Amino acid sequence: MDLFDKCERRSLADEARDKGIYPYFHALESRQDTVVQMEGKRRIMLGSNNYLGLTTDPAVMEAGRLALERYGTGCSGSRFLNGTLEMHLELEAELAGFLHKDQAVCFSTGFQSNLGIISALIGTRDYVICDRENHASIYDGCKLSYGKMLRYRHSDMADLERKLAQVPQGSGCLIVTDGVFSMGGDIANLPEIVRLARAYGARVMVDDAHGLGVIGQGGRGTASHFGLEDQVDIIMGTFSKSLASLGGFMVASSRVADYVRHTSRPFIFSASIPPVACAVALEALRQLRKRPELVDRLASLAAYARNGLQARGLPVRPSTTPIVPIYTYDTIATLVKAKALYEAGVYVNPVLPPATPEGECLLRTSYMASHTEALLDEAMDIIAAVLLPKA
Amino acid sequence: MDLFDKCERRSLADEARDKGIYPYFHALESRQDTVVQMEGKRRIMLGSNNYLGLTTDPAVMEAGRLALERYGTGCSGSRFLNGTLEMHLELEAELAGFLHKDQAVCFSTGFQSNLGIISALIGTRDYVICDRENHASIYDGCKLSYGKMLRYRHSDMADLERKLAQVPQGSGCLIVTDGVFSMGGDIANLPEIVRLARAYGARVMVDDAHGLGVIGQGGRGTASHFGLEDQVDIIMGTFSKSLASLGGFMVASSRVADYVRHTSRPFIFSASIPPVACAVALEALRQLRKRPELVDRLASLAAYARNGLQARGLPVRPSTTPIVPIYTYDTIATLVKAKALYEAGVYVNPVLPPATPEGECLLRTSYMASHTEALLDEAMDIIAAVLLPKA
Repeated sequence: MDLFDKCERRSLADEARDKGIYPYFHALESRQDTVVQMEGKRRIMLGSNNYLGLTTDPAVMEAGRLALERYGTGCSGSRFLNGTLEMHLELEAELAGFLHKDQAVCFSTGFQSNLGIISALIGTRDYVICDRENHASIYDGCKLSYGKMLRYRHSDMADLERKLAQVPQGSGCLIVTDGVFSMGGDIANLPEIVRLARAYGARVMVDDAHGLGVIGQGGRGTASHFGLEDQVDIIMGTFSKSLASLGGFMVASSRVADYVRHTSRPFIFSASIPPVACAVALEALRQLRKRPELVDRLASLAAYARNGLQARGLPVRPSTTPIVPIYTYDTIATLVKAKALYEAGVYVNPVLPPATPEGECLLRTSYMASHTEALLDEAMDIIAAVLLPKA
Repeated sequence: MDLFDKCERRSLADEARDKGIYPYFHALESRQDTVVQMEGKRRIMLGSNNYLGLTTDPAVMEAGRLALERYGTGCSGSRFLNGTLEMHLELEAELAGFLHKDQAVCFSTGFQSNLGIISALIGTRDYVICDRENHASIYDGCKLSYGKMLRYRHSDMADLERKLAQVPQGSGCLIVTDGVFSMGGDIANLPEIVRLARAYGARVMVDDAHGLGVIGQGGRGTASHFGLEDQVDIIMGTFSKSLASLGGFMVASSRVADYVRHTSRPFIFSASIPPVACAVALEALRQLRKRPELVDRLASLAAYARNGLQARGLPVRPSTTPIVPIYTYDTIATLVKAKALYEAGVYVNPVLPPATPEGECLLRTSYMASHTEALLDEAMDIIAAVLLPKA
């Protein structure tokens, strides 16, 4: 059999293209903002992770411009070798300070952060225990490690305890959970996870890609939300969501950070984030510290959207974050509805298996601190008109 | 045992710090250029991958500035969903055109490109065969896949053939090789690899991270260098070396590219490269097309350095690329010499196991099209003074 035979088979993408409901790779002609120009038309953006709207913030853009001018376009090497700028160290110090941990380590992407943290720390005799709905990069980090991975049913603490009980005495163990789940928008039950971790001698890592800048005191994320910062061993986050850039990081104790820095292949063998990306993340973090009201505004707009969608009779999953899923159940129906919304001027993300269980497809809507109530009203009216059965 | 016990153990990093020969994370206070300001002092940069020197090119910087102004600081989502700019499609089209393949797929880093290509294409019943000195990200891509990985001794074609003979009938097979090996600077024996691949029904992928912009017609890399572009199925490259940015890509046939786009988790679940990074890579590619003399200049300066080091009596590995290793053998001796060079004003990269075989440590020097003969003379005089036994 030829290796490429699999590429010739007809795929769901082929089918969606034939039906005219292909939902992927719609190209932006404008900035990533509350309203975008996409494939020649104005669309209200309810499908980004730009929670604080900082990708177009003047101070953040200016910090990027200055870094480009001063440091050029790239570092041309890994953090480990020739690719460290003083600014990378500054960013790491401010992240560690903000999240109340000893040290931070910055990676080139959020995806690589999870790969790099988990594969470095989980050795042959170690166990890593995952919530079933954790992000793909966490699973890939587990696959890349030489340890054993166990999964518990989504947010099912009894199942987590069963899995902890399976870990042999003498094995190291790490529980990894999304803080805010990226598709459902629900928050991990961190108090119970932390309690179980203590009881079973496990360590805890939280992926706060969708928690940072979104929940917790001043946007400090899920651990802060529950007042458990000192009980979580590793917090991972990204720069491509609230922090308006690209990259990722972990914060942890000095020894854990130092260990990861010297053993993590996805960290050591990858070029560092360019000067502009570094300066943008740093200035976005400073904006977040300076303007904690952004986090409140985001929460208030998310509540406005959640209530507005519910009031209009839409089947909304009741999250408490700016990720508000609307159930559409069937795969093809979901693609048809996403396409109809797109045509009507609202961009949302269709979420299909394997990102959801079969038959539980949804349209993921997400909100930004820079949306306005008027814009959300416009979007919600369109969503209701398109999705609800005609009277 | 606690998971973090491993982090408390004394490491080579601790030993190097105690001895004052710790070689990592030296921070730049200036642009990545031929001469840098690093930890308060001027150092001649012989340790970057900035082969064409485009990180400070005015046209490349200006393209970055315009993209920042026009598109903001980040795309806040994956290429797959909300994070595609028209400019990403333009970059992909120009890469495919430049390398004479149907289509390109851009990834967020070079590291993730190898992860994403290999893990998508190598299924449970497939085999991937690697040169032992392939880049870490290729190995991690193999580990992330569900197929079987075989390794052959570095550039040993008889050993490659033995491995090919082990692949069961009916299994798909991909041979993956660095085009230019990143540490040794030698070039893969692509004519023989391609011949064997045909004989055994295998496909061929070349990682041209260090070949693009460096060898081949107009900098088109290793396949072009041998006139074998139509015999290589997949070419992978990065933006963080000759192209002055951060990111990576593959070029391949339309169906293979389409398959990877819809199945590759490191592609689908990672945010796209920001507008500036995209614009920088695109303009750097255009500069490379416009100024093929950069490639010739790079080759000529590399030859100048190679000959100059040899003439000064240094144990140079005779590569034909801008990567020129100087053997230093022992681990601690290598760190001591790297440190002495650093103090004397020349930055080079110490390369230790597992990146080299035990007892074959080296100092990797690398060259840029923007170096000058005078600067290289200065650097080589320092290298000779520091490394050679005193008369």
